[in-house]
Amino acid sequence: MIILGIDPGLAIMGYGVIETDGSRHRLVQYGALTTEAKTPMPSRLLSIHTGVEQLLAIYKPDQIALEELFFAKNVTTGIAVGEARGAALVAAARYTQELYEYTPMQVKQAVTGTGRADKTQVQAMVRAILGMREIPKPDDAADALAVAITHAHSMRAGALFKIV
Amino acid sequence: MIILGIDPGLAIMGYGVIETDGSRHRLVQYGALTTEAKTPMPSRLLSIHTGVEQLLAIYKPDQIALEELFFAKNVTTGIAVGEARGAALVAAARYTQELYEYTPMQVKQAVTGTGRADKTQVQAMVRAILGMREIPKPDDAADALAVAITHAHSMRAGALFKIV
Repeated sequence: MIILGIDPGLAIMGYGVIETDGSRHRLVQYGALTTEAKTPMPSRLLSIHTGVEQLLAIYKPDQIALEELFFAKNVTTGIAVGEARGAALVAAARYTQELYEYTPMQVKQAVTGTGRADKTQVQAMVRAILGMREIPKPDDAADALAVAITHAHSMRAGALFKIV
Repeated sequence: MIILGIDPGLAIMGYGVIETDGSRHRLVQYGALTTEAKTPMPSRLLSIHTGVEQLLAIYKPDQIALEELFFAKNVTTGIAVGEARGAALVAAARYTQELYEYTPMQVKQAVTGTGRADKTQVQAMVRAILGMREIPKPDDAADALAVAITHAHSMRAGALFKIV
């Protein structure tokens, strides 16, 4: 099974693709979609939307897992990040109803075994789990791989978090 | 020229279509796209996106004006409303780059002549300007017509507010 993990964002949206048989996970690809602050907002959103469509067409994931946003510095930031997430979700929703989301706490717990792990520990575990030589960069791509791994673990544990 | 006004929202998104020659405005259509709270979020966003696509296909507007969101009760609400706005903006951005937005204050000023007008005064002026028998319902549709009228006035005044 192919899982696409997404760490939503406006300036940078991380993605990570893994293949899993439930217990063993293999890295397929990872990276980030970026948009420039000087580009008009509608074009940035369209770019994110089209980027996610392309990822879906290329990797044909069976399921998609997103990191949940439930915080932001302020309401204005929240609206902008929400717009970016909405642009990505529309592409994902047109592709499949197999959409899941996990909080940063759930990701930390699933990947490192403790919800109190810091970013560096999560990234080191992502590297180890996927047998990568180096820690994946940028951070957003590492986060996206972490959420994909979290979804694979949740499937195995029968504790899925479908977006509702 | 045909102008589509949109009042973005998750549960209810108002729209209003007018035709204008710069000084005289004619009502074409108005209404609202609604989504149910019990429907999963991705499906709600896809429904909004598809709804806006249909409005664009039916009315073929030359320009699109949105009411700007820069407030929300809290960050969580801001993210959800942002997601809905993002879903609509992706459809709009794929259709045209002629996208504009106006704050509630600008809408009040343009429609009634004062930024201190209340909702009822704005709605009464929308009815009068478009020669409608009754005040358009729901409120979201009246707001969408108001933002379309605001854009028509701004074009005439040479004071456009392109989304950047």
